[in-house]
Amino acid sequence: MEIKLIQIAQLISGSIEGDENCIISAVSKIEEGFVGSITFLANEKYSNFIYSTGASAVIVNSNFKADKPLNASLIRVEDAYTAFAKILNVFNPVRYDEIGISSSAIISPSAIVGKDVFIGNFVTLGSNVTIGETTKVYHNSVIGNDVKIGKNCKIFPNVVIMANSIIGDNCSLYSGVIIGADGFGFAPEKGGNYAKVPQVGNVVIEDNVEIGANTTVDRATIGSTIIRKGVKLDNLIQIAHNCEIGENTVIAAQVGISGSTKIGKNCMIGGQVGIAGHIKIGDNVILYAKTGVIGNIEDGAMHMGAPSFDVKRYKKNYIYYMNLEKFAQRITQLEHEIKDLKRERINFLSLF
Amino acid sequence: MEIKLIQIAQLISGSIEGDENCIISAVSKIEEGFVGSITFLANEKYSNFIYSTGASAVIVNSNFKADKPLNASLIRVEDAYTAFAKILNVFNPVRYDEIGISSSAIISPSAIVGKDVFIGNFVTLGSNVTIGETTKVYHNSVIGNDVKIGKNCKIFPNVVIMANSIIGDNCSLYSGVIIGADGFGFAPEKGGNYAKVPQVGNVVIEDNVEIGANTTVDRATIGSTIIRKGVKLDNLIQIAHNCEIGENTVIAAQVGISGSTKIGKNCMIGGQVGIAGHIKIGDNVILYAKTGVIGNIEDGAMHMGAPSFDVKRYKKNYIYYMNLEKFAQRITQLEHEIKDLKRERINFLSLF
Amino acid sequence: MEIKLIQIAQLISGSIEGDENCIISAVSKIEEGFVGSITFLANEKYSNFIYSTGASAVIVNSNFKADKPLNASLIRVEDAYTAFAKILNVFNPVRYDEIGISSSAIISPSAIVGKDVFIGNFVTLGSNVTIGETTKVYHNSVIGNDVKIGKNCKIFPNVVIMANSIIGDNCSLYSGVIIGADGFGFAPEKGGNYAKVPQVGNVVIEDNVEIGANTTVDRATIGSTIIRKGVKLDNLIQIAHNCEIGENTVIAAQVGISGSTKIGKNCMIGGQVGIAGHIKIGDNVILYAKTGVIGNIEDGAMHMGAPSFDVKRYKKNYIYYMNLEKFAQRITQLEHEIKDLKRERINFLSLF
Repeated sequence: MEIKLIQIAQLISGSIEGDENCIISAVSKIEEGFVGSITFLANEKYSNFIYSTGASAVIVNSNFKADKPLNASLIRVEDAYTAFAKILNVFNPVRYDEIGISSSAIISPSAIVGKDVFIGNFVTLGSNVTIGETTKVYHNSVIGNDVKIGKNCKIFPNVVIMANSIIGDNCSLYSGVIIGADGFGFAPEKGGNYAKVPQVGNVVIEDNVEIGANTTVDRATIGSTIIRKGVKLDNLIQIAHNCEIGENTVIAAQVGISGSTKIGKNCMIGGQVGIAGHIKIGDNVILYAKTGVIGNIEDGAMHMGAPSFDVKRYKKNYIYYMNLEKFAQRITQLEHEIKDLKRERINFLSLF
Repeated sequence: MEIKLIQIAQLISGSIEGDENCIISAVSKIEEGFVGSITFLANEKYSNFIYSTGASAVIVNSNFKADKPLNASLIRVEDAYTAFAKILNVFNPVRYDEIGISSSAIISPSAIVGKDVFIGNFVTLGSNVTIGETTKVYHNSVIGNDVKIGKNCKIFPNVVIMANSIIGDNCSLYSGVIIGADGFGFAPEKGGNYAKVPQVGNVVIEDNVEIGANTTVDRATIGSTIIRKGVKLDNLIQIAHNCEIGENTVIAAQVGISGSTKIGKNCMIGGQVGIAGHIKIGDNVILYAKTGVIGNIEDGAMHMGAPSFDVKRYKKNYIYYMNLEKFAQRITQLEHEIKDLKRERINFLSLF
Repeated sequence: MEIKLIQIAQLISGSIEGDENCIISAVSKIEEGFVGSITFLANEKYSNFIYSTGASAVIVNSNFKADKPLNASLIRVEDAYTAFAKILNVFNPVRYDEIGISSSAIISPSAIVGKDVFIGNFVTLGSNVTIGETTKVYHNSVIGNDVKIGKNCKIFPNVVIMANSIIGDNCSLYSGVIIGADGFGFAPEKGGNYAKVPQVGNVVIEDNVEIGANTTVDRATIGSTIIRKGVKLDNLIQIAHNCEIGENTVIAAQVGISGSTKIGKNCMIGGQVGIAGHIKIGDNVILYAKTGVIGNIEDGAMHMGAPSFDVKRYKKNYIYYMNLEKFAQRITQLEHEIKDLKRERINFLSLF
């Protein structure tokens, strides 16, 4: 794969500073650039590398100003990260272009598969399953009865989608994802036993959703657990029964969301966050990593801590927390001084 | 599925207020009720919905008092949640009633399967495996050598049960569960390497246990990792080697329990709790979400925080923590006042 | 399996105190010892059991001093835990000695498998896969195109290794491990949508690595996510794209490491730790369980808390935190005393 820098610039509507005929044959990280590679600079932490990179070209934000001379050619664009993402596709060695149905797959006669699908080895499609056109269900995945999967999805190897789940178009479910296992519902009985609460609902996943490896989304007790369009879930996340995750919300790895909680649109939720059940998180909320949320949060709020509160206040408190020893010393010092003042006062009064 | 309200009331030993001949055809959430649906009210957070619900009937606790007029008929029972759980089964669209052995399964000649079992597609049953009657092992699950599984269990798709594990009756293991992988044991060697400590024990799971999707229970180094009867484990939980989880203990998602720790009976452990190794948690202990336990806990205690301590004290401390800025201001104010008092004293003494 | 105590002593270069002809037929925990069993004492928590154990022999550290009479014979060695690990292998009931290729496996004609491999049921080996000699790929695992796996590895059931991953020699990947799923990279677009950033890199796992059940290691955006030789990862861990984990670092269950972070050699990372992206952790660093790291950490540091800082300081602060109520009382007391002093001063001044 070889391509001239000017062709890349055209792909991403950028303007070149340097050699537009330079040949690009690979992508690289900025600190590992080499002749023929193109890279990008978007995160300030990596700014210093632009002067020393061995890459032939660097995609930068339009407002980038060089402090020192540069060896690499530049392509200036509005958003260097987004532009570079486009270039990555050009050089992607992994092509998900398989088509066909493995003879080892076991497909119910009542299942309907669209054209140009891929159904991998040892896949089971249950009764009344529908698979949209160009969707790929990779090896060893199990699709339960009455599941509907839209067009152009990727169901990676060893995924399980339990009965009655509905998946939209353009979704990617990575390996080990479990959709529609029973929610965790038990009713206490006399004697300390628990009776299982049947989970009769399902899971609905809208279009353009990505779900990371080994993430679990439980079916609803009644109704649906809903993942709205554009949601991105990282690995090892737990979404409990009857949750609803709003449009374009992004959730980092190992987050757990308890039953019946509703999360708004365009939220950003950091890694290992935990959210209690039966609460409501507004739109555009930001939760810092490891935050524990126990109550409703209004639109646009930024929370940290467990139990969580406003991030600015949290960070201020945390600095006080880190300095509690000084507080203790100051209080002790005050106690001594008060004691001295009182002693002096007594001595003084005794003069009279 | 249509059934008269009076028949439902009989099923759950409830008393009707309203139209006992009303036809029920579905279950619904209280806030999404519709004509023909039955719902329930158990959590106070949802009390307001009972006056506006479109449901035809609501199951309530016997002591429920209406503040306003109601449209829906009521069924009064001792415990509305438990009663509703029974009704859910009536309307459950998913029936786990498969029987038979897939021709694609690979079953060791020495394996023994009881009557009316279901063995799904691409399942492997190793040598000397025993599967009790009416148990179902769904597609792509792998059952290792010498594993014993009791009666009436559900082993959902893509579960792995490693060699020598023992599973009781009436257990459900959801997809992605891994039973009996090696415990995490390594002995440090010179030069910084670690030597693997062979894990020669097994896992024992007693009757009526539920284990959620992608949860892992490691085999013991020696002896057994034990999950006692009636335990309910949610998704993505880690139970390390040689742990023992006491009868009817309930553990929420993403909890991690380190090696050789013993948990008592009837405990409730919140999401994302972490528990150190080689400790003992008593019976009836409650651990709040995200708690980190580093020492033994006595029967009946309620803990929060990391490291954890008594929840009442924790909550009080946390309020102080949230107000550390005010502490700082008060200390600074005291320092100023002491300074003033001292200055005055010096001025005053100079009068003499 | 029966073996004389003197033979065991020879295996671990230990010296016997007691009956060297005693017959050993099993290993046991010290608190569950029985006639014919051998056990060990390394953790002080279990010291008391050595006087009451029913075991025939106990392996102890060379400096062990008995306070009371012992029933068991002793074997003294330099490191009792390491020595016992060797003995465990002798008594391990699980032998990973399968050889052969299941007729149900689907193996690309371009795949190359070394001699004495085991390829289990329903395994897929993609095109250009290489499997080193004596490596075992157990049932239902999926090995993507162009994956290279070294010699003497164990790939347990239901593992997924995505395209282009490279695995060294002597590695064990437990069930449910997902290697090389896409990293979590999205570029924000106008309107709140996210564009997927293609993940064109791979995963490289060096020799002697163990990866616990249901752990996920994502492929790099560019270049490689790297797990260096001797690393031990427990269950349910998330290693994000472009991370590098240094030689012989040991990581406990449910840890999450965000993208592009580099961890040094010989670190010990406790359970449920979270580490932010794009940072650098030095060599020999110890992170306590549940720690949240947000910045670089120098070699040899020990951190606790979230956000984390030095463990000694953290523990001191935490004790202050637990006693904030007393701080509050002392401050209130000081305020009263100051008020009294001021009142007296006013009264006193009025005398003049």
